[in-house]
Amino acid sequence: MGIPGWLEETRRLVDGWIEADLPLASARTGSVEEAMRYSLLANGKRLRPQLVLAGGLYVGRSIEDVREPALAVEYLHTYSLIHDDLPAMDNDDWRRGKPTSHRVFGEAMAILAGDALLTEAFSKMADPQLTERFDVDRILKALWVLAQASGRHGLIQGQVDDLASEGQSLELSSLSAVHRNKTGALIVACLRIPAILVGDQEAERRLGEFGNHLGLAFQIVDDILNEIGDARKMGKATGTDRLLEKATYPHLMGMGHARELALQHRALAHEALGGGDEAAILRGLIDFTVDRQW
Amino acid sequence: MGIPGWLEETRRLVDGWIEADLPLASARTGSVEEAMRYSLLANGKRLRPQLVLAGGLYVGRSIEDVREPALAVEYLHTYSLIHDDLPAMDNDDWRRGKPTSHRVFGEAMAILAGDALLTEAFSKMADPQLTERFDVDRILKALWVLAQASGRHGLIQGQVDDLASEGQSLELSSLSAVHRNKTGALIVACLRIPAILVGDQEAERRLGEFGNHLGLAFQIVDDILNEIGDARKMGKATGTDRLLEKATYPHLMGMGHARELALQHRALAHEALGGGDEAAILRGLIDFTVDRQW
Repeated sequence: MGIPGWLEETRRLVDGWIEADLPLASARTGSVEEAMRYSLLANGKRLRPQLVLAGGLYVGRSIEDVREPALAVEYLHTYSLIHDDLPAMDNDDWRRGKPTSHRVFGEAMAILAGDALLTEAFSKMADPQLTERFDVDRILKALWVLAQASGRHGLIQGQVDDLASEGQSLELSSLSAVHRNKTGALIVACLRIPAILVGDQEAERRLGEFGNHLGLAFQIVDDILNEIGDARKMGKATGTDRLLEKATYPHLMGMGHARELALQHRALAHEALGGGDEAAILRGLIDFTVDRQW
Repeated sequence: MGIPGWLEETRRLVDGWIEADLPLASARTGSVEEAMRYSLLANGKRLRPQLVLAGGLYVGRSIEDVREPALAVEYLHTYSLIHDDLPAMDNDDWRRGKPTSHRVFGEAMAILAGDALLTEAFSKMADPQLTERFDVDRILKALWVLAQASGRHGLIQGQVDDLASEGQSLELSSLSAVHRNKTGALIVACLRIPAILVGDQEAERRLGEFGNHLGLAFQIVDDILNEIGDARKMGKATGTDRLLEKATYPHLMGMGHARELALQHRALAHEALGGGDEAAILRGLIDFTVDRQW
């Protein structure tokens, strides 16, 4: 069915899992579940859970087998968006075409909804259902890797550096370091986790390397699209990076070189995967990421 | 050496563990580690880790055996204090006689320090060193119990209800429900975790019941001390609950009945433990909690 079809199908699948995990009936007005649901079901692309699913296929498991880790990474990602959008942080009013959590529920509830999603992510990784499918020692290792990727040496470090760099002219090496932590670490973890769960170290290494290149390619293309893209398609304002004088790849190296760098990461990502059929979806994902809309 | 001596000794021990885990050298100016350390080393009593240690002794293990869970619960507790103190939440400027995190580091860093501590707590539970001492399936169960206690059905639910009840006259049953979630759930988890780690279900049941009574006794005594206590000894302003017209036990049932209720919980806590030597510290802890300063 091709990558767009697979992405659409798995997006609906993940949406359904979230609906089942946090049903509308649990989200009464004024509850933290209401705010959790609002952000979880706010038109997310589900890239991170899709990487877990594709990584699962790469190591020969079914999509259903990695349901809980897929939900865990989406919960982690959503918590980070809610907290990043807060007035004290990036102070964003809109996200994916909808008002941000604190605009709808107030700051206190937005902070708590983020906290609850972060906690729920680790709860999902420790879900007894997962132990029926994978060795417990591997589950614990996967959970540890996820905690490292999202903690003070990963996602949170990236956000700290991002806030510290505001209004400063970053060099290319610093920009890459921010992205490696802020978005890259979790993307790499999404890909390593299925390999860790089945205990395949060679696959873990390959998927980790693939994830590293995917993460950087993703960010470069995002920067390019922010510069040239259509605001409606992006679901957010474009040209904002330039207005804010934010360091971006096109800004630091020129549009042509930024495109070239994205293509280099695509080639290296393909190389990391090897040529087998089990990598078909992942190959499609990096191609789709780099080729979108330019 | 008696309970005060044991509390002082274990407080120093936990302080040393935190120092080793987040050394000063890792906490450069502007880093999230700096803010994490500030709140972790801000004169905490270390009640929650002490409950883990005492629970460990109850099930026949050494204090060192439960080091990582003890750190995990202190990290969780500290994250909840940092986020609760934020301007959008309780807006507190002081905590344990020191300026609160957001007053020192700003709101953004305080939010991130809380997030990092919450993440680090689960990282500690998945620490490979713990797997050398306990079965991995029990560690994962303990981690899951901790996530439940701190998540949307535990600590976070308590904070949501607490915020929602501001300025409202709570009934006694609602007040108990808030406390059961906001402070009780984590206290109960602290006590159950050592029993879960050794796989002793009878001890888990007894410790859980003990924790339930300890948590309620602790809150009732806290309310009493807020009403009559010495601000210097408490390390925070007293009489504030009355000023804010906050629902408290003395307010709802009178001072005499509140004291009686605390004594009842003490008796039930003793009963839950049984009469053996292994419960000596825990018996001392509930006595110390109920008898402090009145």
